[in-house]
Amino acid sequence: MDAPTEFTELKERLAEVSDLGRTGRLLFWDQQTKMPPGGAKARAEMIGTLSKIVHTKFIDDRVGELLESLRSYEESLDYESDEASLIRVTRLDYEKARRVPTELRAEMSASASRALPVWNQAKQDSDFGALLPFLTENMELRKQYVACFEPADEPYDVLLDDFERGMKTAEVREVFQTLKDELLPFIAECFDRADKVDTSVLEGHFDPDKQLDLSKFVLDRFGFTAERWRLDYTAHPFASGTSTGDIRLTTHRRENDLNTLFATMHEFGHGVYESGVAPELERSPLGSGVSLGLHESQSRMWENLVGRSMPFWRFLYPRLQQTFPSHFGNVDLEQFYGAINAVRPSFIRIDADEVTYNFHVILRFELEQEILAGMDLATLPEAWNTKVKEYLGVDVPDDAQGVLQDMHWSGGHIGYFPTYSLGNVISVQIWERAQEAIPDLYDQFERGEFAPLREWLRENLHRHGRKFTPQETLEKVAGAPIDARPYVRYLKQKLGEIYGISVPAAV
Amino acid sequence: MDAPTEFTELKERLAEVSDLGRTGRLLFWDQQTKMPPGGAKARAEMIGTLSKIVHTKFIDDRVGELLESLRSYEESLDYESDEASLIRVTRLDYEKARRVPTELRAEMSASASRALPVWNQAKQDSDFGALLPFLTENMELRKQYVACFEPADEPYDVLLDDFERGMKTAEVREVFQTLKDELLPFIAECFDRADKVDTSVLEGHFDPDKQLDLSKFVLDRFGFTAERWRLDYTAHPFASGTSTGDIRLTTHRRENDLNTLFATMHEFGHGVYESGVAPELERSPLGSGVSLGLHESQSRMWENLVGRSMPFWRFLYPRLQQTFPSHFGNVDLEQFYGAINAVRPSFIRIDADEVTYNFHVILRFELEQEILAGMDLATLPEAWNTKVKEYLGVDVPDDAQGVLQDMHWSGGHIGYFPTYSLGNVISVQIWERAQEAIPDLYDQFERGEFAPLREWLRENLHRHGRKFTPQETLEKVAGAPIDARPYVRYLKQKLGEIYGISVPAAV
Repeated sequence: MDAPTEFTELKERLAEVSDLGRTGRLLFWDQQTKMPPGGAKARAEMIGTLSKIVHTKFIDDRVGELLESLRSYEESLDYESDEASLIRVTRLDYEKARRVPTELRAEMSASASRALPVWNQAKQDSDFGALLPFLTENMELRKQYVACFEPADEPYDVLLDDFERGMKTAEVREVFQTLKDELLPFIAECFDRADKVDTSVLEGHFDPDKQLDLSKFVLDRFGFTAERWRLDYTAHPFASGTSTGDIRLTTHRRENDLNTLFATMHEFGHGVYESGVAPELERSPLGSGVSLGLHESQSRMWENLVGRSMPFWRFLYPRLQQTFPSHFGNVDLEQFYGAINAVRPSFIRIDADEVTYNFHVILRFELEQEILAGMDLATLPEAWNTKVKEYLGVDVPDDAQGVLQDMHWSGGHIGYFPTYSLGNVISVQIWERAQEAIPDLYDQFERGEFAPLREWLRENLHRHGRKFTPQETLEKVAGAPIDARPYVRYLKQKLGEIYGISVPAAV
Repeated sequence: MDAPTEFTELKERLAEVSDLGRTGRLLFWDQQTKMPPGGAKARAEMIGTLSKIVHTKFIDDRVGELLESLRSYEESLDYESDEASLIRVTRLDYEKARRVPTELRAEMSASASRALPVWNQAKQDSDFGALLPFLTENMELRKQYVACFEPADEPYDVLLDDFERGMKTAEVREVFQTLKDELLPFIAECFDRADKVDTSVLEGHFDPDKQLDLSKFVLDRFGFTAERWRLDYTAHPFASGTSTGDIRLTTHRRENDLNTLFATMHEFGHGVYESGVAPELERSPLGSGVSLGLHESQSRMWENLVGRSMPFWRFLYPRLQQTFPSHFGNVDLEQFYGAINAVRPSFIRIDADEVTYNFHVILRFELEQEILAGMDLATLPEAWNTKVKEYLGVDVPDDAQGVLQDMHWSGGHIGYFPTYSLGNVISVQIWERAQEAIPDLYDQFERGEFAPLREWLRENLHRHGRKFTPQETLEKVAGAPIDARPYVRYLKQKLGEIYGISVPAAV
């Protein structure tokens, strides 16, 4: 069947919405990287106007009419075709977008805009009370948002769906239960053996310019090219861009640790996912990564599975030693490798190691459900601190290092946090398939070769964009639904070797 | 009278159009300065979609209804009020925008997009024949554009009006006739006395980084602050920005001359005009400079009336000597001042001195009128070369240095060129008023003080934005309609001193 004119019209409308979405991303990127501070007021107005137009254009009645008229065309098509996928995914996006009144959307956005600067100050002052009324407003609006949708198994399902479509709270809970059962005792063992690893080699002053040069060297090896990528500094690293040919990473300038490099590798993972979406999906709702969980699987893969692996450091360590001879000239590779993988309690999620990181996430996931269930928000700091003590064994010294550390809740984002750990879990499921497909993967890393991994990921994951659901996408690339066991195996084996903990053959 | 709800609605609609316009400027700025080359295709799509939406929103029937319903409100207001000005200027913008069918607009834009890359190649190959069919198409479309409007005194009036609203071709002709009468003989005298000025001191290699540092030093003195401005490199310098708090200049990287500094001062003039528009006019059609002529008066003022003046160089020359000691250590200020003001024949407009520059413009103005009158475009190179010989006394060696040097015609812009010389003329009319208001202006320059000039310009010109017509604006700041005589006086006095030509007391 030839594509009906309604399909052409739909595609053209969606292409315009996509162009405006890309433009919005550029407004944000510029705001974070290049804009003089004096441009802030105008920028907020520009972003506000653009968001409104994008939304209005997308929820237009005509889009619904077109989708309706295309049902028989859709049925005539192969499920996996670009055309069927476009109609199917757009229909779901449209139905979700239409459920939320424009006024509520505006109110949520305004409430978040009010709360974020208050959060910023409250964090500086470690003053949760200042944020409380704003947080309360955000959360009330989120409950109204949930009420816009058909009742789900659990209210949290509705919020989670915005970031990991189709994922149920119960599934996340099961995954996280496995992590708790398996990793909490393991973490305790690592903590007991803290003296096995000397992290003092990572202390000192590291010239930020040299860190940037090293990061660029690694990016070049990974597949960054000036033709299609850029790298800039920001306080909080992120990945953005306007198309597969214009990918923009940012990293942070650090003086007292090596985190520029790890942050850069993390953002490369996000960027390379977007760069690998099939060009024919661009300018459509299918032209980006499918979910936050899958996205985070890619960033965590390049940061940790590649960037904190022994083969990678066999390749890079001589250059690191040359770059910082007074720090590492007399440190052997094994000692360095132990230090960058050390399992240590920490208060701040983004400073956490690969293992404890998940418990920073799990505690937020559990608190978010309590919040939705009606928890008195005044008790949130206490509940937070209790969980940190339970999971990480440490006493939170103040709310700045506790409940106030992340901006997500002040920005109104509930249901977002779990995707960080889902990404970890998924990354190893995919990794095991990549290792099967490329048996000499680690030998390649030792030689500084990363193109085969990147191209395998492109072929098996990145190119699909949003054509399929996150679950379908995971099945395609990993051959199985979400499963925490490979991730637990990976952590126990890697950290077991470092800490001298014998690990059973299989979990 | 309280503002009627229609006024509020109009303002809100215009604010959105303005936000999208600012966004379009950012897309262009980013494209020229930061975008990886691989983003080109997506960027063209983004700009195309945004332009279409801006235009559609502005020419909406509802805007016309609102303007119509606001006639009695407008009449109740003071002519100079922001409200009356907004209605008046928007009505004129709207009537002009509605006259041109969307298809013709799209065709003009597409034709220019086709012609520009061909021009680029044709210039490299010095092959006018390759460009001819594309130029012919551009010009035919321009004639169709002219036909959309009520017949004017001359067809050229319609095109000129897009860049200098209200200006008539006959007025420009009169101004340019004065320049021809007065300056052509004067230029001949300067050429005869070429040995009075030694320009060889400007030859050599000038470290681009040092030129940039010097340019930034000057910008800081002029009023550039990191809070509200940026400076980047591009092949062709320009000024842009998104608001009075976000002004973005670009300059070019030069090795074989000092043009980074002069280009930077030029763009500062454009930028400071936009930065000085009254904040209450922002987010409306009134929130920018009023015309290209007035804009160019500001860029040429900071480049030439300030930046090529003796008092300015009394301030800066010691620093220039320190920056480039091997070039200028043994060159006295008078010699340097003569060199940067030397009157010399040249083929390329943007390399021309203050005096001959105008004849590069006048010849294009005259040719454009012949084109509209039906000239055979195949004869354009010959006609060009004849005029260069007549006005500047030199033989054009090839079309790359002749008719192919500028992109304007290939971009479809006819009626734009005259504003370059109108800017020169206007700049001195304003300058004379500034000198009356600030009697020690030149003493201030010698001390490196430029804020009083900048603030006088803001108060008397910049803040008005587009509230008034270019003619009304000129009357406000200069107290007179356009008049070439002050400019001629200025040139003859300045260059007369340098070349030892005695000048009559008044023109």
